[in-house]
Amino acid sequence: MWLVIAACLAVFQGTIGDPSCASCKNWKDGVLNVHIVPHSHDDVGWLKTVDQYYYGSRQGIQNAGVQYILDTVVSQLLHDPAKRFVQVETAFFWQWWQEQNDHMRHQVKQLVSNGQLELLGGGWVMNDEAVTHYQATVDQFTWGFRRLNDTFGSCGAPRAGWQIDPFGHSRETASLMATMGFDGLFFGRLDYADKTQRLKNKTAEMVWQGSPQNLGKPAELFTHVLFNHYSPPPGFCFDLLCGDEPFIDSKHSPDYNVDRRVKEFVDYAKKQSAHYTTNNIIMTMGQDFNYQDANAWYKNLDKLIKYVNAKNPDLNLFYSTPTCYLQAVNSANVTWTTKDDDFFPYPSDQHSYWTGYFTSRPTLKFFAAQGNNFLQVCKQLYALTELGPEDWADLTAMREAVAMMQHHDAITGTEQQHVAQDYALRLSRGFDECHFATEAAVTKLLTINSTQPTLDFESCTQLNISQCATTESSDRFVVLVFNPLSRSVSHHVRIPVASSSYKVSDAVGVEVKAQMVPLPEPMLRLPGRVSPAKQELVFMAEKLPPLGYTTFYVQKLAGKSMLAYAEKGPERLTLKNKFMEVSVNEITGELSEIVVDGAQQTIDQSFYYYEGAVGDNEEAKNRSSGAYIFRPAGDATKVAKQAKTISYKGPIVQELQQTFSPWVSQVVRLYEDDPHHLELEWLVGPIPIEDGKGKEVVSRLAIDWRTDGIFYTDSNGREMMTRKRRENLTEPIAGNYYPVTTAALLASGEQMLAVFPDRAQGASSLRDGELELMVHRRLLKDDAFGVSEALNETAFGEGLVARGRHIVKLGSKSLKAEQRRLAQQHNVLRPWLLFAPTDLTAKQFAKTYKTSWSGLSAALPPNVNLLTLEPWKGRSLLLRLEHLQNRDDDEVLSKPVTVSLKSLFSGFDVTAARETSLGANRWLSDVKRMEWEIDSNDIGLDSNTLAGGLDDDFNVTLTPMQIRTFIIDVTAKKV
Amino acid sequence: MWLVIAACLAVFQGTIGDPSCASCKNWKDGVLNVHIVPHSHDDVGWLKTVDQYYYGSRQGIQNAGVQYILDTVVSQLLHDPAKRFVQVETAFFWQWWQEQNDHMRHQVKQLVSNGQLELLGGGWVMNDEAVTHYQATVDQFTWGFRRLNDTFGSCGAPRAGWQIDPFGHSRETASLMATMGFDGLFFGRLDYADKTQRLKNKTAEMVWQGSPQNLGKPAELFTHVLFNHYSPPPGFCFDLLCGDEPFIDSKHSPDYNVDRRVKEFVDYAKKQSAHYTTNNIIMTMGQDFNYQDANAWYKNLDKLIKYVNAKNPDLNLFYSTPTCYLQAVNSANVTWTTKDDDFFPYPSDQHSYWTGYFTSRPTLKFFAAQGNNFLQVCKQLYALTELGPEDWADLTAMREAVAMMQHHDAITGTEQQHVAQDYALRLSRGFDECHFATEAAVTKLLTINSTQPTLDFESCTQLNISQCATTESSDRFVVLVFNPLSRSVSHHVRIPVASSSYKVSDAVGVEVKAQMVPLPEPMLRLPGRVSPAKQELVFMAEKLPPLGYTTFYVQKLAGKSMLAYAEKGPERLTLKNKFMEVSVNEITGELSEIVVDGAQQTIDQSFYYYEGAVGDNEEAKNRSSGAYIFRPAGDATKVAKQAKTISYKGPIVQELQQTFSPWVSQVVRLYEDDPHHLELEWLVGPIPIEDGKGKEVVSRLAIDWRTDGIFYTDSNGREMMTRKRRENLTEPIAGNYYPVTTAALLASGEQMLAVFPDRAQGASSLRDGELELMVHRRLLKDDAFGVSEALNETAFGEGLVARGRHIVKLGSKSLKAEQRRLAQQHNVLRPWLLFAPTDLTAKQFAKTYKTSWSGLSAALPPNVNLLTLEPWKGRSLLLRLEHLQNRDDDEVLSKPVTVSLKSLFSGFDVTAARETSLGANRWLSDVKRMEWEIDSNDIGLDSNTLAGGLDDDFNVTLTPMQIRTFIIDVTAKKV
Repeated sequence: MWLVIAACLAVFQGTIGDPSCASCKNWKDGVLNVHIVPHSHDDVGWLKTVDQYYYGSRQGIQNAGVQYILDTVVSQLLHDPAKRFVQVETAFFWQWWQEQNDHMRHQVKQLVSNGQLELLGGGWVMNDEAVTHYQATVDQFTWGFRRLNDTFGSCGAPRAGWQIDPFGHSRETASLMATMGFDGLFFGRLDYADKTQRLKNKTAEMVWQGSPQNLGKPAELFTHVLFNHYSPPPGFCFDLLCGDEPFIDSKHSPDYNVDRRVKEFVDYAKKQSAHYTTNNIIMTMGQDFNYQDANAWYKNLDKLIKYVNAKNPDLNLFYSTPTCYLQAVNSANVTWTTKDDDFFPYPSDQHSYWTGYFTSRPTLKFFAAQGNNFLQVCKQLYALTELGPEDWADLTAMREAVAMMQHHDAITGTEQQHVAQDYALRLSRGFDECHFATEAAVTKLLTINSTQPTLDFESCTQLNISQCATTESSDRFVVLVFNPLSRSVSHHVRIPVASSSYKVSDAVGVEVKAQMVPLPEPMLRLPGRVSPAKQELVFMAEKLPPLGYTTFYVQKLAGKSMLAYAEKGPERLTLKNKFMEVSVNEITGELSEIVVDGAQQTIDQSFYYYEGAVGDNEEAKNRSSGAYIFRPAGDATKVAKQAKTISYKGPIVQELQQTFSPWVSQVVRLYEDDPHHLELEWLVGPIPIEDGKGKEVVSRLAIDWRTDGIFYTDSNGREMMTRKRRENLTEPIAGNYYPVTTAALLASGEQMLAVFPDRAQGASSLRDGELELMVHRRLLKDDAFGVSEALNETAFGEGLVARGRHIVKLGSKSLKAEQRRLAQQHNVLRPWLLFAPTDLTAKQFAKTYKTSWSGLSAALPPNVNLLTLEPWKGRSLLLRLEHLQNRDDDEVLSKPVTVSLKSLFSGFDVTAARETSLGANRWLSDVKRMEWEIDSNDIGLDSNTLAGGLDDDFNVTLTPMQIRTFIIDVTAKKV
Repeated sequence: MWLVIAACLAVFQGTIGDPSCASCKNWKDGVLNVHIVPHSHDDVGWLKTVDQYYYGSRQGIQNAGVQYILDTVVSQLLHDPAKRFVQVETAFFWQWWQEQNDHMRHQVKQLVSNGQLELLGGGWVMNDEAVTHYQATVDQFTWGFRRLNDTFGSCGAPRAGWQIDPFGHSRETASLMATMGFDGLFFGRLDYADKTQRLKNKTAEMVWQGSPQNLGKPAELFTHVLFNHYSPPPGFCFDLLCGDEPFIDSKHSPDYNVDRRVKEFVDYAKKQSAHYTTNNIIMTMGQDFNYQDANAWYKNLDKLIKYVNAKNPDLNLFYSTPTCYLQAVNSANVTWTTKDDDFFPYPSDQHSYWTGYFTSRPTLKFFAAQGNNFLQVCKQLYALTELGPEDWADLTAMREAVAMMQHHDAITGTEQQHVAQDYALRLSRGFDECHFATEAAVTKLLTINSTQPTLDFESCTQLNISQCATTESSDRFVVLVFNPLSRSVSHHVRIPVASSSYKVSDAVGVEVKAQMVPLPEPMLRLPGRVSPAKQELVFMAEKLPPLGYTTFYVQKLAGKSMLAYAEKGPERLTLKNKFMEVSVNEITGELSEIVVDGAQQTIDQSFYYYEGAVGDNEEAKNRSSGAYIFRPAGDATKVAKQAKTISYKGPIVQELQQTFSPWVSQVVRLYEDDPHHLELEWLVGPIPIEDGKGKEVVSRLAIDWRTDGIFYTDSNGREMMTRKRRENLTEPIAGNYYPVTTAALLASGEQMLAVFPDRAQGASSLRDGELELMVHRRLLKDDAFGVSEALNETAFGEGLVARGRHIVKLGSKSLKAEQRRLAQQHNVLRPWLLFAPTDLTAKQFAKTYKTSWSGLSAALPPNVNLLTLEPWKGRSLLLRLEHLQNRDDDEVLSKPVTVSLKSLFSGFDVTAARETSLGANRWLSDVKRMEWEIDSNDIGLDSNTLAGGLDDDFNVTLTPMQIRTFIIDVTAKKV
């Protein structure tokens, strides 16, 4: 095993072994210990773009410049070893670090080592927890940690979560943070009533069980609800921009205020202390973008500490950090209560439910999802083909852009319009980089010998609006379909084309079935769409190789049109394949009935809209619906009583095109070979506002089930959360909304109805048998939580149009687990299409290139997924495997499963592997988390089970829902 | 002479000899040198009090905290030896310095020595130039310099004036600054049209002749009018609170702006350079209270310098200071134009003449004048009686309070109301200190042996409203009259008493003539006056000892009332003494005729008011009259057509009490023994605003002279300025207003009419023979120059009432010089009264105490005044003598005059004396000012004439208007 360790030594700079980098035992027995924690909450974009925040430009929007914060804070820390600061957002820290000279870097390293500068949270951003996918969250932490680890070694590994601003908190995030090795989590926002109750009961500190059914103790996380959001006590914000009263300690001054100020603080500290269990309290001394002039803060904090301590022997104020606080509280040997659900939704008052942002900016949310999809493809291909500097390819821009999108004011849609555009621009630059990398990778893979003509591949990022230059303009072109999943999947390829007749051949040159479907009429007049394509060519890419690709050859034909036969409504239209039959009501044009496995279900699907409440926001009851807040003015209104319908049927797919109104239409698709799978592709917008009213549009499915108020939503795309509709809320609609990242479910007896959206959306079940997802929203008034703009997105001079996809599955509950996970995975990591024109014939092409390939020696078991594969440091790779099933989902699939890493990959052998914590910044064997006594049992797993070593074949056993992370060294297989 | 030098060595820390503390030759030939001068303009009170500014409290009013500025600037300077900063206001610097530890002090000393921290201006405050008295100005500089010199030695001596914000500039200030050894003066505010012209002509740099008729070259000062006020080029204010665009120099950033920003700056620099003579320009990089976060400024200035220099070989940007700039410009060997008048008034646009502040807050201005008066008394007594720490007396609070009052937003009346109250509070504390010191001093002086009963002296600071507890409540009391002038003067003492019959005895117990005068009726209902006194006892203190005192004994009598006989109008009333006869018009009740020396003059005096203009201030033509701006809505209206009159006549004084309206009244007094001296004591307020209109009240004298538009006003109480009424102004009234500190004159042939106010006031002669002084103003709208409050002073729940005194002299021009100077001096340094109750009889008192005493061996010649006598360092004293007359005033008095210091004082001999510059911070022999070639002749005096040494008797020769400053050592005379 020496080899392994030696090979990996380069990975973590600094000490091997659990490092004790900083000492912080400043607390005392028998007094109230007040942990003074200087911090600044620096949004990686919100009202300003990330660069505007970094440099401090456009101060007219918000006076905030992160460069000044880091400059002045570091200067203060260097001048006084007693002072401390917590640095959270690595995106900003890294930007600053790169500007520093060697001398400064050396000094900052010492500040980190001695604990003065505590790196906390440490993700690239402080990610949102509602609408993010766990894969992107893990990635954004990993990338933040990576930069810190490269810079500071083991002392740079954050030890606690600091999610002070996200608008509610998911259980999955707690689970991930625990698995990253964090000792605790701090946050500020939760249901106002819950907070009141917790403060009253002294349960604002608890042990949160992040995966009570599956992972048990390793996913438990000590969680602290901050007393005053993340702000200082009222009147004690000493930031230059706060304007609270500084200490005036000249005794000659007419304004001398030390005695009064000390009393105010002590009173507050004692009040706060009454709500917590130990003789420690934490005072968050900072707010958004504080410490641009760190001296102003610290100078007054110095005085605060000096004067309070001098006058109050029963108090002990000192500069501290959240980690030090955790140590102090942990040492108190208290037994803690537990929590096993999550902190959604988040109402900040009776009328302000932060459930609007689950849907806000639907197209940005889609772009974010697509970004994660492409980043994974890009990283996988980069790793599998050993791209490196010599290939001029890099992953940094895309890693950073996707990570940045996870920020709690990015993917949430709660940023200003110009900032949303900046995120999109950055992501688009990331796409450019990944286009380059993937093209280089597939060129390597396709190449058999170097004399072959070079193929010029491109990704078509506008396939979502049925637009692609190569497919529209080429008579012959190749479609490369890369499958990022570690299992074989089949996938229906849809490509916009300008002609009406094409022939499609597979990787060996054999013709495959293809069909032509006209685009729905609203797509032809979509603002911003510039395409000659009036139809899409559809064919099935069957059994795609796991973590690999196959190619298809498409040739334009001069012959007769392949356009499918159209049926127009209103008649009783029916879509049907061997698994499912779907009927449409002849009057309304809506879905009316589904027959699955011979069982008939009455089902209805239509579009509704809520009018957004409008108020002056002065009081809670006058809250407007806005970017954060969903607050309908009343019940939903149906968009149209009747949809115009037309259907197209062919050998691959049967489509029903519904037009509800000029701004709402939908295509219902039933593919020939897809079991229990109905695809609803909605097109919504521009949402009309001529009546002066903002509107929030939902797609509502209703099935004749009694569901007892129960429905299910995923937590960040991983474990499911049971939701129970709450009655008697002041906001009965908004208050029952929950975030859906990848799945929302209803169940009745053995039956299950599931909807898998292609991006995060808000969802609810407001009445039994109903499941609604909010797909788009356009509002005319700000909700006064800071963004200062109405969420009124426009594009091309009109209200924004959004197009998206709901996969609907209806079936028996026993299918649930596997089907759901596959649908989720398939939806998140969709096969990625690359297109290249060619002059070769189909046969020539199949002979000339390597037209099919898998990166794996074999598909992974159906309950295992390759979560991460990416180039790491030097020639090592980062690998994550995950168990996909819950402990009680399935007799077979829920069992632990073992995978051997050694020969996992088709192209190379694993020669060394060492397990790390989830964030890939600490050897798992070094992780010793704090122990917390709890007042209830967990499921018994303990961390030792998980930290087990590897045998010589690198066999890895995964328990249900477990993710294991490895840094591996590989050697190319001898050919 | 060794003794002298040795004795004085302790006075200046640091190097003897002209020190070359800092090197700053960064400019280059053949390129445009851009001197980047970081600075912060820190008002010693304005919208906030001085402590609120220092500590940065009440940021809601203005975000400004000087402690943060000094903290962060010093930190920046310490980190980079290329950076520089100029520190101006010593009041703030000293407050900061006192908080620093030894290590920091040591570092800051190095910054001063190496020129990084340039001390500029260096007064306690940046004094106003219009309404200050030169004595107070000299004192405030001296006190600022003293603190700097104590701290930094010779490198701490400022070398240039930095009057960037005062609202116009007096020639006297230039003269004083030259005499302080300054090499130049920089300012920002002057007549907008003059500035345009000077920029056009490249005469924004000139040699200002501060005393062309008297002092000549030693009073010449190179003067630089700043290009853009004292601000950075538009868009280049990098203060955290400015919000201008920072340099965004990451090439990857969507906001990268270096090329554009460099071009903007270079364009501006070249534009600026076109208006100046040499290849140097100065860029003032700062504004009000900038650099609270010095890092933000310097970080961007670093980038500015780096990128501009890198891209523009024809430019040379570097951190510099005004002194370095002066060196660069001086080395260019250019011949400069001269200026020999002043920069008043200051219109910032066609309708905004800053002439209102000449009068704003008349009672605060009076308190300031009284403060200077008492400070001089206090310092003199302190020095003369060798008070020291053992007497528990100190001068610091009063020195600082009076100095602070000279600030250009203090005495000017342009501060917010609560700030005015703070100044008054501080001054009042200074008074308390001086009460203590003067009481200790006179107790020492009066004491013959220690068994005497102690007298409990008090000053009555409310004599100005005829209120004094001791005199009102005591049956027997002593009045000590201290004369701070170095000549003998007679003075009429007026003291409020509750009874109607008193006997007054002099220092030897001989009864003196006394008279009782009823208070005018409006005084009896004066808001805030709490006094049982309904009359004043008046007697003459004849031939007071120079720089000494005499006492009077007052005893209440039971006998008949001494109240004078009253004549009521309307009749032709006449006041008459042996010099003058004053008649009152029987219809109007106004003055109508004065007969002096047999010559009859028709004269009229009455009160008028202007309505203040009201506008929205958006455009110049909509400017409101306000604290700064005088802008009448039209011609003045007479307060009343008729005054009710009553007169009281007695052996000492004849009084005419006029009541013009419920809010304007006046007492006209003619004292029996005063030649050519009429006293007008006006009482104005509460100015009525019930009509919604602000009003500005003037006292107007009209005499039937043709004056050709010429009138005269003093420059800070010293030399007179000739004013010529300007016609065709956009603001014909306000634009002809000038500041009067101590005297305004009209002349016709050999006749002279002079008014000496008891505080600074605005004045004009709008028509020939007229002289008006504005005595009070109350306005309802802000003039939008920052103070953000209307000048609507109230007290005791009503509009403020002001009471004041105009001494009027009418006589032949030949009397002018001596009379004027005496009247000025007597008005500024009035005898100070101290009161003490006693149980002794008059005779007993005269025998028991030393009832009369002079600090001088003999009175000084009539053309010499002792300007300063105060305790200095150790046992040394600071002494200033001044020649009082102009070069051409009088055949005798205008001659040079010699005074021997050796035996000047009655109590001690001068054992050592060394001459210093005016500010007492540099040996005069060390002062080598830069030489500037001018395009016109001066009067030929050169500095060598003035820097002549002293002979063994310390004989000092003074030329007309010369002030000479000495540090002297003294030994008590052997008795």
